[in-house]
Amino acid sequence: MNQQPFPTELARDLVRRGYSRRSFGRLASFLAGGAGLTFYNEPALAQFSDLGALPEGAVRINANENPAGPCPEALAAIARVAGTGGRYQFEEAPRFARALADSEGLRPDYVLPFPGSSDALHRAILAFTSPSRSLVLGDPGYEAGERAANFIGSAVHKVPLTTDYAHDVQGMVKADPNAGVFYLCNPNNPSGTVTPRAAIEWLLANKPAGSILLLDEAYIHFTEEPSGVSLAAKDQDVIVLRTFSKLYGMAGLRAGAAIGRPDLIGRLRAYGGGILPATGMAAATASLACKDLVSNRRAGMKRLREEQFAFCEKHKIKYIPSVSNKWMIDAGIPARELTWKLAAENVYIGRSWPVWPTYARVTIGTPGEMAKFQQALLKVLAA
Amino acid sequence: MNQQPFPTELARDLVRRGYSRRSFGRLASFLAGGAGLTFYNEPALAQFSDLGALPEGAVRINANENPAGPCPEALAAIARVAGTGGRYQFEEAPRFARALADSEGLRPDYVLPFPGSSDALHRAILAFTSPSRSLVLGDPGYEAGERAANFIGSAVHKVPLTTDYAHDVQGMVKADPNAGVFYLCNPNNPSGTVTPRAAIEWLLANKPAGSILLLDEAYIHFTEEPSGVSLAAKDQDVIVLRTFSKLYGMAGLRAGAAIGRPDLIGRLRAYGGGILPATGMAAATASLACKDLVSNRRAGMKRLREEQFAFCEKHKIKYIPSVSNKWMIDAGIPARELTWKLAAENVYIGRSWPVWPTYARVTIGTPGEMAKFQQALLKVLAA
Repeated sequence: MNQQPFPTELARDLVRRGYSRRSFGRLASFLAGGAGLTFYNEPALAQFSDLGALPEGAVRINANENPAGPCPEALAAIARVAGTGGRYQFEEAPRFARALADSEGLRPDYVLPFPGSSDALHRAILAFTSPSRSLVLGDPGYEAGERAANFIGSAVHKVPLTTDYAHDVQGMVKADPNAGVFYLCNPNNPSGTVTPRAAIEWLLANKPAGSILLLDEAYIHFTEEPSGVSLAAKDQDVIVLRTFSKLYGMAGLRAGAAIGRPDLIGRLRAYGGGILPATGMAAATASLACKDLVSNRRAGMKRLREEQFAFCEKHKIKYIPSVSNKWMIDAGIPARELTWKLAAENVYIGRSWPVWPTYARVTIGTPGEMAKFQQALLKVLAA
Repeated sequence: MNQQPFPTELARDLVRRGYSRRSFGRLASFLAGGAGLTFYNEPALAQFSDLGALPEGAVRINANENPAGPCPEALAAIARVAGTGGRYQFEEAPRFARALADSEGLRPDYVLPFPGSSDALHRAILAFTSPSRSLVLGDPGYEAGERAANFIGSAVHKVPLTTDYAHDVQGMVKADPNAGVFYLCNPNNPSGTVTPRAAIEWLLANKPAGSILLLDEAYIHFTEEPSGVSLAAKDQDVIVLRTFSKLYGMAGLRAGAAIGRPDLIGRLRAYGGGILPATGMAAATASLACKDLVSNRRAGMKRLREEQFAFCEKHKIKYIPSVSNKWMIDAGIPARELTWKLAAENVYIGRSWPVWPTYARVTIGTPGEMAKFQQALLKVLAA
């Protein structure tokens, strides 16, 4: 473990600002290099987010959340099902599946609802990798699947992104002729960059028999990219993951889905699951009925994202051009040091990836949050 | 499979009353003996409940739900966290764990939050049974654990309840000297009857080394029985399951917990899980702060339950004296036939268990629902 000592002055600063001693210990342990990470530790992956209440006025741009929250129609749906929360309301999940299938032009049996997409991601790794069939993913990439693979003893092959930040699908296929899962997040987390449709189709045409493409589209709504759902509709070996945690602003409410051929998503079903929260299901259904929600939020995000890029260019901060709700910056100091120093300014950005140690991920929050982030970053860089 | 044909006249009745053809096919399949049951199929276990909207005015006393729903404080908590639903709100789960631990006089690390208790139940079976270590449970008993055991190839031993409807703990220990899990629901589902504390302590003292007692207290709040949490606090080999789906009226909202020695509940953690719905977590925390909620609802349930028993006695309907929010009746006709005939009256009761084929489970709903149930039952019996 590549541990770095936690700087004493920053520790004092944080405690003074209201961290409890316990939260502080956990913060230190997470920053020290993921020592606290277990098989399934979304809070840890989201960095800082499970540390309890952050200090007053904290700028939370660490977890790719959407501060806009759910649309008003979703809130109304939550209020409706909460009042009848004494009932299981099992009908809300298939209703959501039908609404999502309709909106994508699919048969409902191609959609399996989940409380977000993380659960589906984990189960796909459990179902399609094994000690003899590996997981192949891009680097930097979202690590949750990797932890699931480690848990069941499946090998993991990380293949660096190409120089234009797409997944290197040829390298991925070469990485293991007996891979079970090719995990491809499009646009990618953390880089926010796109893998072109032609590359995805090449991967599907050239991957080993019996393997699947696990296409994580958590951030697809922020782009104009074609969705892999059309490949699932053509019965290809692909499971598309969708979540309502990002553009739809429902991270805490839990709704998502696995989309694919019924025999493929059926293998996720076998790994158990649970009774889905009626609140999340009903809110997701209501969100799908909001016709302009995706286009409006996508356009707003694009404007704000371009402002961040302009800021970076003005101040000669290296960055990776993203099409998502987060982007990566290289501020000329080690990313971890940048994270600590911004935390001391009450600004909480995302983590860094070992393959790119000088880059840190920053979520695009509200305009007000981004103004505070820019101010804090300039202060840190001037010091 | 002990299939019985679905009666044509009832089929016609149900379709006329608004069942879709699809729902109807599923209803028939469930009633035919569980053919549609998979590893994890809570909706099927709850009988009828996933059939989509039941007909207008349906009396839903099939799934041990609490029609009172969440307390007002819980609804307020839901509204609060829904508005900030764009955030993961990871802090809500540990906050709930601390509140539950405080209310039970436990250290917080003895409490592992879950979205209800079913997920925890399944994981305990996955963690503590195996092809060489069986699951032992009472009969009739709640079947969800049995299905999880079947899924991973663990043997299942069902031990009939004693003549006074307690778990036969001596018979359970005798059933398999190499059992991994003794599952004991107290009060029991479906019978609503109690296993005395002394018997539970005997089981713990006499069970094989390396096994655990999985003590499902989904319905404990309806009784004055001592909770097994005090045994967990003494570091015994017990995991206590709690849910907010029953007395707390939060079935559709999803909150529950596994309580036990950190090393025991830690083994559930390893099986993955998910990001918990902030709505369910916050509502559960708020419910725990409602001081009179349990005692008031418990007293109200007792009054209504005693009215049902008086009705049964007046009409010479055999029943099992329950201390829960459901009880079992033997109306002198096969339980499955009774279920069909009541469904034709728009009254949906619970299922029956093969070991007691003349008894059906009936959930205690609102006073109005119970009046309709009684009326329908008398009509069916008079026909």
